[in-house]
Amino acid sequence: MTRQIAAEAIGSFFLFAAVVGSGIMAETLSGGNVGIALLANALATGAILFVLIAMLGPVSGAHFNPAVTLVMALGRRIAPRAAALYVAAQLAGGILGVWAAHLMFDLPLLQFSEKARTGSGQWAGEFVATFGLILTILGTVRHRPDWVAPSVALYITAAYWFTSSTSFANPAIAVARSLSDSFAGIAPADVPAFVTAQLGGAVAAWMYGRWLFAGEAAA
Amino acid sequence: MTRQIAAEAIGSFFLFAAVVGSGIMAETLSGGNVGIALLANALATGAILFVLIAMLGPVSGAHFNPAVTLVMALGRRIAPRAAALYVAAQLAGGILGVWAAHLMFDLPLLQFSEKARTGSGQWAGEFVATFGLILTILGTVRHRPDWVAPSVALYITAAYWFTSSTSFANPAIAVARSLSDSFAGIAPADVPAFVTAQLGGAVAAWMYGRWLFAGEAAA
Amino acid sequence: MTRQIAAEAIGSFFLFAAVVGSGIMAETLSGGNVGIALLANALATGAILFVLIAMLGPVSGAHFNPAVTLVMALGRRIAPRAAALYVAAQLAGGILGVWAAHLMFDLPLLQFSEKARTGSGQWAGEFVATFGLILTILGTVRHRPDWVAPSVALYITAAYWFTSSTSFANPAIAVARSLSDSFAGIAPADVPAFVTAQLGGAVAAWMYGRWLFAGEAAA
Amino acid sequence: MTRQIAAEAIGSFFLFAAVVGSGIMAETLSGGNVGIALLANALATGAILFVLIAMLGPVSGAHFNPAVTLVMALGRRIAPRAAALYVAAQLAGGILGVWAAHLMFDLPLLQFSEKARTGSGQWAGEFVATFGLILTILGTVRHRPDWVAPSVALYITAAYWFTSSTSFANPAIAVARSLSDSFAGIAPADVPAFVTAQLGGAVAAWMYGRWLFAGEAAA
Repeated sequence: MTRQIAAEAIGSFFLFAAVVGSGIMAETLSGGNVGIALLANALATGAILFVLIAMLGPVSGAHFNPAVTLVMALGRRIAPRAAALYVAAQLAGGILGVWAAHLMFDLPLLQFSEKARTGSGQWAGEFVATFGLILTILGTVRHRPDWVAPSVALYITAAYWFTSSTSFANPAIAVARSLSDSFAGIAPADVPAFVTAQLGGAVAAWMYGRWLFAGEAAA
Repeated sequence: MTRQIAAEAIGSFFLFAAVVGSGIMAETLSGGNVGIALLANALATGAILFVLIAMLGPVSGAHFNPAVTLVMALGRRIAPRAAALYVAAQLAGGILGVWAAHLMFDLPLLQFSEKARTGSGQWAGEFVATFGLILTILGTVRHRPDWVAPSVALYITAAYWFTSSTSFANPAIAVARSLSDSFAGIAPADVPAFVTAQLGGAVAAWMYGRWLFAGEAAA
Repeated sequence: MTRQIAAEAIGSFFLFAAVVGSGIMAETLSGGNVGIALLANALATGAILFVLIAMLGPVSGAHFNPAVTLVMALGRRIAPRAAALYVAAQLAGGILGVWAAHLMFDLPLLQFSEKARTGSGQWAGEFVATFGLILTILGTVRHRPDWVAPSVALYITAAYWFTSSTSFANPAIAVARSLSDSFAGIAPADVPAFVTAQLGGAVAAWMYGRWLFAGEAAA
Repeated sequence: MTRQIAAEAIGSFFLFAAVVGSGIMAETLSGGNVGIALLANALATGAILFVLIAMLGPVSGAHFNPAVTLVMALGRRIAPRAAALYVAAQLAGGILGVWAAHLMFDLPLLQFSEKARTGSGQWAGEFVATFGLILTILGTVRHRPDWVAPSVALYITAAYWFTSSTSFANPAIAVARSLSDSFAGIAPADVPAFVTAQLGGAVAAWMYGRWLFAGEAAA
């Protein structure tokens, strides 16, 4: 169990450091063109997700996301107490990852974001983003376990672009990104609504996916 | 059968939401550089295609495209009545996906595109684009079924760039994109010629591919 | 044999149409930023290469390149007469692909490029580019046949950027690109030196690769 | 053993030529937008890494990096004398690769970089970058050997963006890049601190990874 907790912590460390760090680098280098910055941010996030799921999936399942852990607990793939430890490791490792990004880029460690991310459109974005992420995981875990890593990586790369909220889809990352006043940040006051939408999307996807993926593979 | 119809609907929902949503995001962020916008739109579309085929292929075959369903019906891989239900699910799910993109980006749900996409060059583009898509599917399904998902995803990513029409290659998406006055839109009056060229390309590819891929794999 | 020739022709058609077509689209949309144009051109070329090798490799081996066919003939994997037919199909299919790109983008079919690509630096580029391409093919065919398609695709994507000549690495594409006065063009007078460098790189790689990959896989 | 040394040399040649060559091309074409230049540089580097590991992994293990060779020696996967030869081949092949890039781009062969890369933030970046690279290799080699190539390629693509130092993560490349006064360069005086941070990160990752990946794969 210790190894699994450590895997969730180190994985969340690298994932959140990559999201925030590539956001800082992208904003610095893109000469004010936010499209270029989001391209870099989306590619870096998708790339590191593939790596972390490939490397740590065999150890802990590679959740790095309380919404994923919740769904695995609902499906009785993880016990409630282990799930609580997973979430604690995701938050602790992930916040350390954000601070590591600040350290690498010579920024103050402790920050609070002032970037407003709010409104019904963005909440719908988080609901859709998390619904799709959980459905992706449930479908590939069920029928094509070797494809979980590329599917999750490419899903997030796409969802950065097709949701208005740029697809946080992860309550731990919403909390951690509120601690960075940079490209990837979110004002602390806007976090609870994001988390609510994410958990709603996750539970809806779990209910739908249980039914959708219950049959045998067609071919 | 219900699960298969549901898979076509939810897959078309996410595919069309991704095409239109990433187009809106890309146009907003790219500072007027259409090249950056099309890079983002092509990457998001290719990425979500891989995910949806990986996740839903084992359930429904992951068509999301009436031209694909037509070819599968011509090859007797799907019965005519099921094919009709597939197409209805693609249209219904896909139009809901376009509206979901509008909802996420705080735009009016009901829109009609005013973007002209017409002329013999673009019709040739749609013929070539759909011909290549169907040939890709027939070849990989026949000889390398595990490679359908990456091949279709990368084909569309490339074809966004090498065809003058940016490669709709899908009658349902042509209809659905006429309902969005945004980057990915097409004026309703221009849809019938696009659909005609697509169906022509699909049937030509089916006839050619039947012969080309009839032999055993060489190595 | 007819199917194999047809596969080389249709594959070269799509490959060359993608190279030239995405070059035209990229130049048009990139607002004068050649970096953005080459990013799009390289991504489209790499993506279609994966698709064509996946789809047509089991039919013809998916050469689409006289330098590859030459090396396969040197290694007695293809008979001289078949090799000659392969090269003819590559040239004919590929030139039709260039014309199809012109047709799609409403440009005159018959053109000659005026883009000078010459000098010892670019010839060194073509030698290095083709050496690396042939070595990639020899190594993956020998030890990891399932990885030929992604390796060739990613090699060319990288080589577009790391060689000064943007890595034609293919005598047939050098000839065909001389027939397009667009982003991907090359002046006809500059073609012979490019082809000479390519064939030199190919033969050198064949001699080196025969020795390098002769052993058993280490792990 | 000769083949293995040759594989390390030719692999480092192409890797370092790709890093420096794509940097020169990117800086030339990106019109002053460093974000576009780094996107191209990161994509070319990741792409060639996949190719070289796919092609040469079965011959030599595809280290191309003294930090990787050190960790393999610590884990007794390679004998000390062979490790020393590997490092010599990486340096010699890699420096020739940098010179080949200069030759291709018509630049003076012998150069020294004047680009300052220093400070605690960048040293932290190199420590984190190399820690993550070694952990990625240890985890995938242990549990998913077929995924080493895509994981290393995507790790470096991401790390170019999420570390402040753009992730050299390789003592040989730090030395070789000091010999190029171009986009990818580093002033010779700044190399020792980079190498120290890299070796520190590598050893830390080896100690952590030995424990983390010691168990059986969970699923």
